[in-house]
Amino acid sequence: MKDDRLERWHKVIFEKDMALLHDLLAEQVEFHSPTVWKPKQGRDITAYILSMVIEIFEDFEYHHEWIDNNSFALEFSAKIDGKNIKGVDLIHWDDEGQIKHFEVMMRPINGLNLMYEKMTEHLKEAGFI
Amino acid sequence: MKDDRLERWHKVIFEKDMALLHDLLAEQVEFHSPTVWKPKQGRDITAYILSMVIEIFEDFEYHHEWIDNNSFALEFSAKIDGKNIKGVDLIHWDDEGQIKHFEVMMRPINGLNLMYEKMTEHLKEAGFI
Repeated sequence: MKDDRLERWHKVIFEKDMALLHDLLAEQVEFHSPTVWKPKQGRDITAYILSMVIEIFEDFEYHHEWIDNNSFALEFSAKIDGKNIKGVDLIHWDDEGQIKHFEVMMRPINGLNLMYEKMTEHLKEAGFI
Repeated sequence: MKDDRLERWHKVIFEKDMALLHDLLAEQVEFHSPTVWKPKQGRDITAYILSMVIEIFEDFEYHHEWIDNNSFALEFSAKIDGKNIKGVDLIHWDDEGQIKHFEVMMRPINGLNLMYEKMTEHLKEAGFI
């Protein structure tokens, strides 16, 4: 079977295909944010956060993509309000081809703080926190 | 030729072999810290920072290691003053088997801030800043 997981993930990110994002996330997916320790659980909150992040990032690009069976590490760069950031998406898939664990790490601190402010603002508006 | 780069890197981290660390770093290595945007350049400052970080981290463990030719992505967990952190080391090697680019990303923000405080303190003491 052709492995089109990376291709489908790119479609989510670069074509902002939010219906596909929903399909790719397992119902019990865990989202580990770059800002806080405690993961968020479930497809709805994870889809919401990821779609928000996709909107916040400007000039998003992947630079290196490591694939090892069900585990991907995707190195990216982007801008937030014009500030440069780098990051990594760690994506673990289940055997049914859905994402069960999504973890993001980012540098440097000032970009991360800006991200945190923007995410908190959006989550409050949406009634999640 | 046997690829023993990962094994040698583990020896640096887990056996605190600082002479080997020096051998593995290219003279012009760039170190991209999790906290600030601007990289540090050169073997001495990079070796100094990495040896400091190795001392600061407690219970350091690698969880997943992606290898793609000259590019490694190594996912770790550790503690700083008892606080949990996760991170990734992105290591790019040159064709001579030395590290030319070392980049670290970490989560969450409180762990990163703690790291920053501790690194700044040490760098001041050593006269680097």
